[in-house]
Amino acid sequence: MYREKIKVFDYTIRDGGLINDHDFEDSFVRAVYRALSEAGVDYMEIGYKNSPRLFADEKFGKWKFCHDDDIRKIIDGIESNVKLSVMVDVGRVDIEDVKPRKESPVSMIRVASYVKDIDKAIYLVNHFADKGYETTVNIMAISRALDNELNEALHQLEEESKANVIYIVDSFGALYQETTEFLIKKAKGIIKTREVGIHAHNNQQLAFANTIEAIIHNANYCDATVYGLGRAAGNCPLELLLGFLKNPKFDIRPILDLISKEFIPLRDKMEWGYVIPYAIAGMLDEHPKSAIELRAGPNKDDFRAFYESLKGKDLD
Amino acid sequence: MYREKIKVFDYTIRDGGLINDHDFEDSFVRAVYRALSEAGVDYMEIGYKNSPRLFADEKFGKWKFCHDDDIRKIIDGIESNVKLSVMVDVGRVDIEDVKPRKESPVSMIRVASYVKDIDKAIYLVNHFADKGYETTVNIMAISRALDNELNEALHQLEEESKANVIYIVDSFGALYQETTEFLIKKAKGIIKTREVGIHAHNNQQLAFANTIEAIIHNANYCDATVYGLGRAAGNCPLELLLGFLKNPKFDIRPILDLISKEFIPLRDKMEWGYVIPYAIAGMLDEHPKSAIELRAGPNKDDFRAFYESLKGKDLD
Repeated sequence: MYREKIKVFDYTIRDGGLINDHDFEDSFVRAVYRALSEAGVDYMEIGYKNSPRLFADEKFGKWKFCHDDDIRKIIDGIESNVKLSVMVDVGRVDIEDVKPRKESPVSMIRVASYVKDIDKAIYLVNHFADKGYETTVNIMAISRALDNELNEALHQLEEESKANVIYIVDSFGALYQETTEFLIKKAKGIIKTREVGIHAHNNQQLAFANTIEAIIHNANYCDATVYGLGRAAGNCPLELLLGFLKNPKFDIRPILDLISKEFIPLRDKMEWGYVIPYAIAGMLDEHPKSAIELRAGPNKDDFRAFYESLKGKDLD
Repeated sequence: MYREKIKVFDYTIRDGGLINDHDFEDSFVRAVYRALSEAGVDYMEIGYKNSPRLFADEKFGKWKFCHDDDIRKIIDGIESNVKLSVMVDVGRVDIEDVKPRKESPVSMIRVASYVKDIDKAIYLVNHFADKGYETTVNIMAISRALDNELNEALHQLEEESKANVIYIVDSFGALYQETTEFLIKKAKGIIKTREVGIHAHNNQQLAFANTIEAIIHNANYCDATVYGLGRAAGNCPLELLLGFLKNPKFDIRPILDLISKEFIPLRDKMEWGYVIPYAIAGMLDEHPKSAIELRAGPNKDDFRAFYESLKGKDLD
C-alpha cells in the first residue's frame, strides 16, 4: 500500500506509560525517539499533558505531565523529522499549562473524548489550535457509541472544531473488519475537510488487520506502537505496519534494532499483548480494567471464571 | 457471524507436532480431544499419516504415523461428536497403510499439496474417497502460486477430484485481507460443487483476520488451533474464532479451561506465536525455515541481520 498522504503515528511511550505510571528512563525514551527518527515515522506521542494540580507529581513519572523542558532533554542532539505529540483527556488538563506552539517542542495535541464529551473536546481542541498546534479529536469507546449520537458528534466535529484529524478509537479491542469498514466509511462521509485516523487495540489480534481495513477505506492517520507495547493487549505493532506500507520513506530496520535491544528485555518485566482475559474482554466488548485486575491477582489464569463473570454482567 | 454450514476444524495436535516431532503425551491429546468435544468443534486433526517405511519410527512420536490403535486409546471413553482427521503429504504416504473408512476411527483425510503436485494430490484424494473417507485438498504456499497455474489446479480439482473441500493455505503467513478476499472469491468461482476452506498462519497477526475475511466471502471450513499452537508463528487461535462465530452449538469455555490447564504451562516449554523473525518471514513472503533456524541458534534476537539476509535473497 503506497499512498503518500498516509501518516504513521507512534504512541509507544504514551500508551506504554499506562503500564508503568509513565515512568520510563530517559535513555529508553531517547532510544525510541532515535529509532522512530531513523525509520521515517511521522509522529511520536510522548505522554499525557495532565495537570500537576490534579495528580500527585511524586506518584507518577514525567510522561504523565510532559513538561516542555523534560521533552527537550529527550530530543537534544538527535537529528529528526518526527513531530512530537501529547495527549490530553477531557477534564484532566489545565489549558494554562500549554504554552503557545512556537515556544514548545510539541507540534500536535490530541484530545481523547467519549462521544458524550464531544462539546468539551471541541472547546479544548479549538483552544489548542488557536495556540498554533496541530490537533486531533480521538473518539474513544467507538464500539459502544450509539449510531445517532456518533453521527451528531461527527457533524459537530466537522462543523465546529478546528481539529486536523478525527480518530476512530477501538478502546475495547472489540471491532472486527466489517465494523471498522462501516465506521471509517461513516466518518469519511461526514468528515469532509479533515483527515480520518484509526487507533486499534489488539485484544483479539485484530489491531493490525483493522488498521489495514481503515487504510483501505481511506483513513490516512494510523496509530501504532513498537512491538505493540501498550496497556493490556497493546496495539497495532509498528513493525508490521511499516512492513505493509510501501512508501520508501519508511525503514523498518531501526525499529527491528530497537525491539532487539530494548523491547525483548522489557517484555520480561512488563506484560502486554495476547493474554486470554484481554481477548475475552475484547470479544465481549468490555473495558479491559477487570482483566487488568485479574492479571494482578492470584487467579490470573482462571480464564473460565473470568469469562463467566463478564458474561454474567450481560444478564444483570 | 451465524451460518450453519460453517465447520470449525481444529488441528492443534497435528501442527503442534511439527514443534516436538509429534511426541505429545496421551494425556495431553486426550485433554484436547475432550475439550474440543465439549466445545462443539466439528473436526480434530490428530497428526500425519506418514509411512513408517519412510521415517525412522523411533525418532518420532506416534502422531507422525497415526496408527488406528493409537487413536483409539485417545478417544476411548470420551463422549464426542468430533470427527477425526489425519493429514497426508504428497510423496510421504503409503496408501496401503490406510484401511477402509469403516474399519478406522478416522473420518477425514486431508491431502496437502503444492500447485505443481495437484495431479498426485487428486490421485491420493480419489483413492481415499473410494475407501469411504471425507477428503480435502489443501493447496499450500498459495501466496507464491502463479495465477494461471492456480486457476488450472482449481479447475482440475473441481472436475477430476472427489475432494469434499478445497483449502486455500497461507503457508508463509504472507496474506493480507485483500489477497485473501481475491483468492477465496477465485476459488468459490471455480469450485462450485464442494466447499472452500481457509488455513491461515499467524506470522503477521493476521490469521484470525484472514479467517474472518474468508468467512465473509463464503469459505465454510475454518482451520484453527488452541491458543494458536503451531510451528513458528502458529495459527488462527481457536478461542478467538469461537468468540466470533455465533452458532449456539459452540461453547468457548472448555477451550478456556484447556488453555489455563495445559497451554499456559506448555508455552514455557515450546515457542510459537508472535516472534519477530516469523513476522519478517511473513512480510517478505518466505518459508519460515530460516527463521526457525535463527531461533534455535545464538543470534535468535538479531532481527536486523535476519531481515537483511532475507532481503538480500531478493537481490540474488
